[in-house]
Amino acid sequence: MTALPSNRIYAEQLDAADPLARFRDRFARPDESLIYLDGNSLGPLPLATAARIAEVIGSEWGAGLVRSWHHWAGLPREVGDLIGEHLTGAAPGQVLVSDSTTVNLFKLVNAALDAQPGRTVLITDDDNFPTDRYVLAGIAAQRGCELRMIHTDLDAGLDTQPLLAALGPDVALVSLSHVAYRSGALADMEQITGLVHDAGALMLWDLCHSAGAVPVRLDASGADLAIGCTYKYLNAGPGAPAFLYVRAGLQDRLRQPIWGWFGQQDQFAMGPAYDPVPGIERFATGTPQIIGTVAVAEGTKLLAEAGIDRLREKGVALTSYLIHLADEWLAPHGFRLASPRADARRGSHVTLHHPDAWRVSQALIAAGVIGDFRTPDRLRLGPVPITTRFTDVWDALDRLRQLAAGKSYEHLPATPSRIT
Amino acid sequence: MTALPSNRIYAEQLDAADPLARFRDRFARPDESLIYLDGNSLGPLPLATAARIAEVIGSEWGAGLVRSWHHWAGLPREVGDLIGEHLTGAAPGQVLVSDSTTVNLFKLVNAALDAQPGRTVLITDDDNFPTDRYVLAGIAAQRGCELRMIHTDLDAGLDTQPLLAALGPDVALVSLSHVAYRSGALADMEQITGLVHDAGALMLWDLCHSAGAVPVRLDASGADLAIGCTYKYLNAGPGAPAFLYVRAGLQDRLRQPIWGWFGQQDQFAMGPAYDPVPGIERFATGTPQIIGTVAVAEGTKLLAEAGIDRLREKGVALTSYLIHLADEWLAPHGFRLASPRADARRGSHVTLHHPDAWRVSQALIAAGVIGDFRTPDRLRLGPVPITTRFTDVWDALDRLRQLAAGKSYEHLPATPSRIT
Repeated sequence: MTALPSNRIYAEQLDAADPLARFRDRFARPDESLIYLDGNSLGPLPLATAARIAEVIGSEWGAGLVRSWHHWAGLPREVGDLIGEHLTGAAPGQVLVSDSTTVNLFKLVNAALDAQPGRTVLITDDDNFPTDRYVLAGIAAQRGCELRMIHTDLDAGLDTQPLLAALGPDVALVSLSHVAYRSGALADMEQITGLVHDAGALMLWDLCHSAGAVPVRLDASGADLAIGCTYKYLNAGPGAPAFLYVRAGLQDRLRQPIWGWFGQQDQFAMGPAYDPVPGIERFATGTPQIIGTVAVAEGTKLLAEAGIDRLREKGVALTSYLIHLADEWLAPHGFRLASPRADARRGSHVTLHHPDAWRVSQALIAAGVIGDFRTPDRLRLGPVPITTRFTDVWDALDRLRQLAAGKSYEHLPATPSRIT
Repeated sequence: MTALPSNRIYAEQLDAADPLARFRDRFARPDESLIYLDGNSLGPLPLATAARIAEVIGSEWGAGLVRSWHHWAGLPREVGDLIGEHLTGAAPGQVLVSDSTTVNLFKLVNAALDAQPGRTVLITDDDNFPTDRYVLAGIAAQRGCELRMIHTDLDAGLDTQPLLAALGPDVALVSLSHVAYRSGALADMEQITGLVHDAGALMLWDLCHSAGAVPVRLDASGADLAIGCTYKYLNAGPGAPAFLYVRAGLQDRLRQPIWGWFGQQDQFAMGPAYDPVPGIERFATGTPQIIGTVAVAEGTKLLAEAGIDRLREKGVALTSYLIHLADEWLAPHGFRLASPRADARRGSHVTLHHPDAWRVSQALIAAGVIGDFRTPDRLRLGPVPITTRFTDVWDALDRLRQLAAGKSYEHLPATPSRIT
């Protein structure tokens, strides 16, 4: 990597050769001077999504009114199938757009426990995303189960040794993130799923930081369950609905705990007893949010057009280039890589240590580069494969080295307030 | 009522005198010949909502990107306060826009059970909306509680006698609908809440068919908990987020079961243990849907401008006029009122029995009048107080009497397929 040139001309050459460069024009770009490296928190707005939502509001809601439910009712499954086909390696009928990541995790973990009465232990890792850890802790507290927490290195990501030590015949489910939200470390889905299955437990993957950026092969890896959000790399907008995956062979063995009318067989018979529909729709709960689901469809189609393998290739190129420049320019100013260096072990974002990371992140925003801060001392930079240019990475790191060199962040408050 | 004139001129006079008539122009009206009497399934599109959503998408998501979370994060509570102030009689800090009705019910019922360890019985009625009954049944099954089902007359609505018989020192929670989804029967919130409190239990109201149509006085009635949807009378669009209410004095005693990161104190510290924020936001779960929440705000503001008391007054006038015409014109063709006749006992929709209700409902749609069918033999007609004219009611019932007289529904399939 250190053999790469560090001049801007090289970045321009990379942009000129980028087969995905034209996709930049498919997104809103309100401010040419802004560099957005936070698509892994909230993805940018696809122009087609704005147009399609306006059409759904005007024609389907405004004119079609309640009649549009004939068409809307199938969307959560149809859009789930799109995600399965283009992004997560799942055959049709296994992915459903539904609720939030948090609520989907709650449903699937309870269902997994109910299906395995003799197994009462849940495993996750201590660097998993907060909502994952909290939901598991809540379920364990409510059901009197054990939540067994394995330790993960904040920079290097998951190691199989602590997992192997925690597995045993009492374990019902292992729940891990495919790409770690802080370090960007990418787990080996197939290997870990195999280890978990060897112990007779079920495997659940959180795909929030991988779906849309990294090819995910749910069916091929043998994964049992997965959840993921759509407002990061799927670019579906703030609070767009999440998705869930349940392996086909497992669906009829599982019953989720929130017995809502959208999971009911013969929904409009409105009969006395809950009788869940066969297949993936039994994991639905209440009335699905239609506008958000349409946004998921548009975002997914755009990624499908770019192609997940090409997106991954560009994601690797962007992040390895970012690491190269950070090594050259930022290491002398106290920055240190807090993500895996090996391309195959990293998702699409890069995290840097810095003792003043909070103030640096704020000064960087003031300099027109949006990344984000993560506790305790990390600056997270997430190039968006479908829109970010190599020159954006160059310019962002250039601005960062300038403010680091001038210590022009030192006048800022040292303590973070609420951010996202 | 039978003293009302049945000619169309009288309906025109009522429209001319309607203080809310001007609000009709604030909604999309794509087809002048269509009469929409299904706002209690999906409310019509406010023009301001279409414009506001376009603005949020373009300016807040497209241009503001992740920075807009500074503003979005407070919306679920701020819009909840709007609902509380204008529609549901709740002082600030007690209503939260969140998830779906189904998921909100699941959260609050579990929280109510956890807070009362000695009480293990849930009560609802056998004509409550399906998702309410199913969610309660699921919770009872999972926790080994008893779900005690009281009988309700499908036409007359809830009677207090079966409720009194079912109450006892083992009861944790009574969960009922304020307005029944099938008959439109309106329960006496204050009286029933009092009876439930006398037995030492908590009271939860489902406001789906009352909020926005009937003044709701949560604080004044002493209600403990409530849930409601926003895509009916609040006109917030298909699958817009629901809301929940938790009485202020009860909030810190309750802990909901889905421990999501949006309910966490100091959310971005991302600490090891779940520690719910004080107040109503502890009932949040995952990332809230922003576009839907904005639509709830717009819909609520429009109702607030019209005034809930004037909306109620018009709702009563529309439904009593509808009943008058049905008595005059439809009774001879085998229709019979399946809603309370007394204005004070009825919400904003009217249901009619007819042995061929399914086919009649389909023929009526073909004749340009959208109402809906409800099992087993009911035609449900829901005038929307903020948009429906008295002449719409006249024209709808006129079309209905014509197709009933000619039996022009008899060629249609006798069996319903999936509808909404």
